[in-house]
Amino acid sequence: MKSIKLAIIGGGSSYTPELLEGVIAEAEHLPIKEVWLVDIPAGERKLHIIEALAKRMIKKSGLLIHIFATMDREKAIEGADYVITQFRVGQLEMRRNDEYISMKHGVIGQETTGAGGFMKALRTIPVILEICKEMERLAPDAWLLNFTNPAGVVTEAVLKHSKIKVVGLCNNPINFYKKFAAVYDVPVEAVRIHFTGVNHLIWITELYIHGQSHIQDVLTGQSESYEAANIPNFDWDMDFLQSLGAIPCGYHRYYYQTDTILKKQRAGYKNKKTRADQVQKVEKELFELYQNPELDRKPEALEQRGGAYYSEAAIQLMKSIHLDTQHIHTLNVRNNGAISCLPESACVEVNCIVEKHKITPLQTSEPSPQIRGLLQIVKAYEELTVEAATTGNKGIAIQALTLHPLIPSADKAKEILDDMLAVNKPYLNWN
Amino acid sequence: MKSIKLAIIGGGSSYTPELLEGVIAEAEHLPIKEVWLVDIPAGERKLHIIEALAKRMIKKSGLLIHIFATMDREKAIEGADYVITQFRVGQLEMRRNDEYISMKHGVIGQETTGAGGFMKALRTIPVILEICKEMERLAPDAWLLNFTNPAGVVTEAVLKHSKIKVVGLCNNPINFYKKFAAVYDVPVEAVRIHFTGVNHLIWITELYIHGQSHIQDVLTGQSESYEAANIPNFDWDMDFLQSLGAIPCGYHRYYYQTDTILKKQRAGYKNKKTRADQVQKVEKELFELYQNPELDRKPEALEQRGGAYYSEAAIQLMKSIHLDTQHIHTLNVRNNGAISCLPESACVEVNCIVEKHKITPLQTSEPSPQIRGLLQIVKAYEELTVEAATTGNKGIAIQALTLHPLIPSADKAKEILDDMLAVNKPYLNWN
Amino acid sequence: MKSIKLAIIGGGSSYTPELLEGVIAEAEHLPIKEVWLVDIPAGERKLHIIEALAKRMIKKSGLLIHIFATMDREKAIEGADYVITQFRVGQLEMRRNDEYISMKHGVIGQETTGAGGFMKALRTIPVILEICKEMERLAPDAWLLNFTNPAGVVTEAVLKHSKIKVVGLCNNPINFYKKFAAVYDVPVEAVRIHFTGVNHLIWITELYIHGQSHIQDVLTGQSESYEAANIPNFDWDMDFLQSLGAIPCGYHRYYYQTDTILKKQRAGYKNKKTRADQVQKVEKELFELYQNPELDRKPEALEQRGGAYYSEAAIQLMKSIHLDTQHIHTLNVRNNGAISCLPESACVEVNCIVEKHKITPLQTSEPSPQIRGLLQIVKAYEELTVEAATTGNKGIAIQALTLHPLIPSADKAKEILDDMLAVNKPYLNWN
Amino acid sequence: MKSIKLAIIGGGSSYTPELLEGVIAEAEHLPIKEVWLVDIPAGERKLHIIEALAKRMIKKSGLLIHIFATMDREKAIEGADYVITQFRVGQLEMRRNDEYISMKHGVIGQETTGAGGFMKALRTIPVILEICKEMERLAPDAWLLNFTNPAGVVTEAVLKHSKIKVVGLCNNPINFYKKFAAVYDVPVEAVRIHFTGVNHLIWITELYIHGQSHIQDVLTGQSESYEAANIPNFDWDMDFLQSLGAIPCGYHRYYYQTDTILKKQRAGYKNKKTRADQVQKVEKELFELYQNPELDRKPEALEQRGGAYYSEAAIQLMKSIHLDTQHIHTLNVRNNGAISCLPESACVEVNCIVEKHKITPLQTSEPSPQIRGLLQIVKAYEELTVEAATTGNKGIAIQALTLHPLIPSADKAKEILDDMLAVNKPYLNWN
Repeated sequence: MKSIKLAIIGGGSSYTPELLEGVIAEAEHLPIKEVWLVDIPAGERKLHIIEALAKRMIKKSGLLIHIFATMDREKAIEGADYVITQFRVGQLEMRRNDEYISMKHGVIGQETTGAGGFMKALRTIPVILEICKEMERLAPDAWLLNFTNPAGVVTEAVLKHSKIKVVGLCNNPINFYKKFAAVYDVPVEAVRIHFTGVNHLIWITELYIHGQSHIQDVLTGQSESYEAANIPNFDWDMDFLQSLGAIPCGYHRYYYQTDTILKKQRAGYKNKKTRADQVQKVEKELFELYQNPELDRKPEALEQRGGAYYSEAAIQLMKSIHLDTQHIHTLNVRNNGAISCLPESACVEVNCIVEKHKITPLQTSEPSPQIRGLLQIVKAYEELTVEAATTGNKGIAIQALTLHPLIPSADKAKEILDDMLAVNKPYLNWN
Repeated sequence: MKSIKLAIIGGGSSYTPELLEGVIAEAEHLPIKEVWLVDIPAGERKLHIIEALAKRMIKKSGLLIHIFATMDREKAIEGADYVITQFRVGQLEMRRNDEYISMKHGVIGQETTGAGGFMKALRTIPVILEICKEMERLAPDAWLLNFTNPAGVVTEAVLKHSKIKVVGLCNNPINFYKKFAAVYDVPVEAVRIHFTGVNHLIWITELYIHGQSHIQDVLTGQSESYEAANIPNFDWDMDFLQSLGAIPCGYHRYYYQTDTILKKQRAGYKNKKTRADQVQKVEKELFELYQNPELDRKPEALEQRGGAYYSEAAIQLMKSIHLDTQHIHTLNVRNNGAISCLPESACVEVNCIVEKHKITPLQTSEPSPQIRGLLQIVKAYEELTVEAATTGNKGIAIQALTLHPLIPSADKAKEILDDMLAVNKPYLNWN
Repeated sequence: MKSIKLAIIGGGSSYTPELLEGVIAEAEHLPIKEVWLVDIPAGERKLHIIEALAKRMIKKSGLLIHIFATMDREKAIEGADYVITQFRVGQLEMRRNDEYISMKHGVIGQETTGAGGFMKALRTIPVILEICKEMERLAPDAWLLNFTNPAGVVTEAVLKHSKIKVVGLCNNPINFYKKFAAVYDVPVEAVRIHFTGVNHLIWITELYIHGQSHIQDVLTGQSESYEAANIPNFDWDMDFLQSLGAIPCGYHRYYYQTDTILKKQRAGYKNKKTRADQVQKVEKELFELYQNPELDRKPEALEQRGGAYYSEAAIQLMKSIHLDTQHIHTLNVRNNGAISCLPESACVEVNCIVEKHKITPLQTSEPSPQIRGLLQIVKAYEELTVEAATTGNKGIAIQALTLHPLIPSADKAKEILDDMLAVNKPYLNWN
Repeated sequence: MKSIKLAIIGGGSSYTPELLEGVIAEAEHLPIKEVWLVDIPAGERKLHIIEALAKRMIKKSGLLIHIFATMDREKAIEGADYVITQFRVGQLEMRRNDEYISMKHGVIGQETTGAGGFMKALRTIPVILEICKEMERLAPDAWLLNFTNPAGVVTEAVLKHSKIKVVGLCNNPINFYKKFAAVYDVPVEAVRIHFTGVNHLIWITELYIHGQSHIQDVLTGQSESYEAANIPNFDWDMDFLQSLGAIPCGYHRYYYQTDTILKKQRAGYKNKKTRADQVQKVEKELFELYQNPELDRKPEALEQRGGAYYSEAAIQLMKSIHLDTQHIHTLNVRNNGAISCLPESACVEVNCIVEKHKITPLQTSEPSPQIRGLLQIVKAYEELTVEAATTGNKGIAIQALTLHPLIPSADKAKEILDDMLAVNKPYLNWN
């Protein structure tokens, strides 16, 4: 089996040690020989902290894996077999702006959905398409595994504007598998989940444990074997769940509990303690830890950062592709009819069969109107977002925001967009 | 040609004189011989005022048309060729409740959309399905022309739960034809409009005058021949229209200008001058006029009531059916693929070819994401509303309201529903 | 109303006098001022016979219509409003070859279907696409009305490879309207027929007379008011019709009665009296008649030629387009979902609403498996035929013929194709 | 893991020893404890020969598997976990009739396609639906694995008329996997094949070896690593294959080489040596072998019978279901959109993911017109065949046969059907 060159764009991210831990753990099956960490000058300091930690981790493992850290992205991409993208355009400072401008206008401020996610997509899509162009030149057969958020929108942009083989990844699905395995005290292999939706807006429409359907346990809360309490953020009203007929994910709260979330966010906004503020703090602490020359493994503190099983999702996917396993993964891919009520060309997050030559989404069952209506409007918003990001058309940007269920009007959309464009000028090439 | 028996359910409505004016004007082509006005005991006084006025109008015309007023609905339906429904369950008093409860909870209060339209649908659907059962027994080949609002949702309920031939009507499309004919100073026949959408949420995607496309006149406001000022309520931002790529209808303001409308409504709510309050006043004045024994024609004051060309839409449709004209009308019918992104079984408002034996919707062009996203979520809300109304399932009712873009959360949906159900108890058969 | 320039390509055809008769009869509504008759040098003699007859006909009518005869096709097309194509590449001699080569190999030899229709398509498509290129340059807004057979396949080639507005015409549908009007003794306007299919393979799935369904009369032969005998070639077995559930057209006999037809054709083949032989004789006689300087109207003998109502179909369509009538015509147009089991891009023959700016096919009902299976295989054959004709790919040509239900194997397809290509070399640009 | 009861209907078949060999070989993973062999009185002698052989085989294996032989089908079905159907209504004698009547009328006589397959379907479907009713009562959660031919049509009848979980099996796909593994000298796991089609009419649209596409090797015959000679019956013309763009299966010869096959069959028919005659002879010899009391394993002579890997297909499928492996098998299942140009409710033969709770077909790529046309007409024929078999409607039976590409006309269809119905009277309940 051919050895693997892996390029990680955004290699200076605090998440990288988790990914490396996975690389080391699966070294027996996945012959990664080179790991290239890429970052931009603004991230140079962090990149070298990570590089040093990575080298200590590899050394401890005794494996023959070479770590390279560079700001020359093309060099890292050239001849790579897999490219993982986990970069953040404008870093946490711009995330903070996304949140604060949203809240200033009275709407939910969040990294991946609503006005915040929209602005992040506008900043990110031009960069990922540049990376794809480089890949088309320097590594045309490589797979692009995209973690950069909003992962569904960013992946859709690549699917529509590049020929590179791409797949979008999120730890949301794998978390559900792990949780249900724990709740029912079975191995993960015994858990089967049918997902339908798009990234950060997936519904579970079926749950099987050892081949038996158990979704009613969750929807009614009536099974002894099932304890909702174990599932974090699972505070749904049981009547609501029952009539929904499906299990929502954590991000559904922005839509189903908009007023409650908004209230909480306003408090954070007033106290200058939004999620971005918190993450900045955690990040700073992590890098202090990482600099410890004694540290030669992923510190536990990283788990609080929110990326649990993120490494496992990526490494297992690379294994399935590389070893041609035909295993099922829940991924962001071109719809191709898997969700019949969405456009063929849209990016969806569903179960897929992974083969070396191809990733094939599995047909989902016809969604109920409860699911369908919200899913369709959010997908239409995402399509317009991709169009706005790739054309720089301000009118389309306003249409995208106006359509979003969390934005109350076209006028408000325009005001928010104007403020956001002003702050993001350095990252955009718009008129 | 066989003579026609016409039954008007809600015959005591202030709109009836307009309808009679149409019946008289088209008597040469449409051989209506009997008009049955039906109402309920609570509307008896109004029914007899209308009856007397109707008789005076017929007398003046010199035509041999018999007017019957009755509270025995089955007698009116028996052997009818056309049944027009224009009733209002709970009368204007309940409309007022719909508006006030909505506004109490901080959401838009409106007769046909949002929480108000939802509640009106719940009250109305059981009654129209009773009427359909009577028709199945007493006039199985009659056409049901439904004006009762929310006309799209009510018509969908009939399409899904009865075998009666039904079509939903609204004066919104015919108003557009008349306005554009006036704006361009051409006969109405020279105007061709492509509509896509559902009742009270239709977009104009194409406009032809004498075979030439003129939609850009409206979207850019740049043609001399076109004066937007002539189109009432047409105060859209030109940039917004241009990127929307279609002409919205008046009801779109509830979605595209939610915050502005809400502000205005709140003022009306505080002063006890909502739309229902205004309509109650107009209605009272109209009935005073109608009682004048000298009056033998439709008074001009009726036009202010908002139903312009309502009669013309109904009479022209009956003519097309009866004379088998193959003319195009814009109607609420079963989708059957005319709007490819909506379910086959959904009720849509589109151009249709009218033949004696069948009304066939014309295929519309693929809607843009701008249109599609909003259209799909509102249609899914409508499907759930029909399901809630026909099953009395409170969970489905909450799902319907939660999905509606004008309702901010599942919790709010629940609170609004509880208040509404309490007030509407006499009209519903729910547990 | 703007006056009309009409170009007729294949103007020297024996059919042209019928078309002129129609132009004259409708002159009041359709202001045709110039008629350009175009032909190639090989048809020069015939062209001038037709020109002279045309001028006598116009003179008799007293109308101000100018007749031009030319071999300069571009001059005729320049500025035309409508271009009618009725040419025959290789003239009747090549039709004779198509029939004889087919029969030599033991398969049905016919002008529009099977191997014969296939070869005619290969010869014709390059020429019509040349015409379209000229139109794109010289008359980009003109409508192309195509009568050249196989009309469905030729029209599909234009739909797929040109931007010219095109519609394919056949007298098959109008003949059915006329026949049923005669059978039921009602005006044609009282007859409504639902067609589904492709050119020369249409099924009638519904028949309404004055708004009442009468198809069972035909399918069971049990109604007194209906006499099948009046419909020419209508010798179907009643049990077969009943289980088919639809009325086939005359060309269905090639598929449903293959062995019987083949037997008859073999007799004609032996005696050198195939259909092409007969038509050559009729044609010769017609041109002798046409040369009579006393003749100033369409001679009755033309009707035997098989093109009854052909003129009426064309002239009525031009009227509907020009006057923007919104009338229904049965035409060959892009499917766009009208027949849900065929590709969107395929050419189908169905009822259409005709407006000045657009011709819109009406949605047909879901075809039964009886209809669907044959329709789908013939359409796939047609798609491959268009592909073969536009690429000159011999492999695709063999696939097309192999797929055709009248060709028994890939080997036979290859043999037939080889023979046909040899004879057609002058008309093709294949390797 | 729960132990398994397996019922084999048609247990007296000469194929049964192969199946038992598989049961024994996989006993470690698949805990089958009871095997019930069921047959009808006419097969009693054979049943007991098989029973005795089976017991000798089990004894030799040292396993604790109980063999039961019975003519009481209900007893065998009661509580079964898997029911395998491999029966033949009317035994080989009726197969012989199917072939001889077909050939008498000049059409291909074959067990599973054309008139022969049609008649076998009519005889078989009523019996399998009886079995399903017994299963619904006595083993409602059991899986039905159907081998009885025509396997696709018979499975479609069960899918449409029973609630039993059913899957149709054929050794055609597994043979391709084995052949390509041998040709490329790789393990079977390294071979990936994309199939599209229906039973006995599948095309290979993609072939991957170790993740690399190799289909062009086969289509062009130009790769050194590939030797077509190793694939039995693979005598396709290379030009034909190249323009087909896919690899046909052996049964395609009936359609693509109809005249050649017919010629060969006619020779066999004259000499009374059709396939049925041959199989009867082989069968007789096999049962002589089976009676040998020394024989305690599957004799090699069985392989000539044509069912290679038949056992492996069945046992591996049971393993995947029972162990919930998520492996891919090529199976006959409800389409559900996997082949987008066929009805959702049709039975198709495609790759499927097998889980304990569900078998999910994988979406196939859009078929080319070459494939699509033939596939669609054969599927429409199959749908009509299921309808004819379940309604006993002779008209529908004639429509089915008329539509079949191997039958030349409706008249011929009628003649063949009349002859076949006369002979099959004892097996049918038609009027």
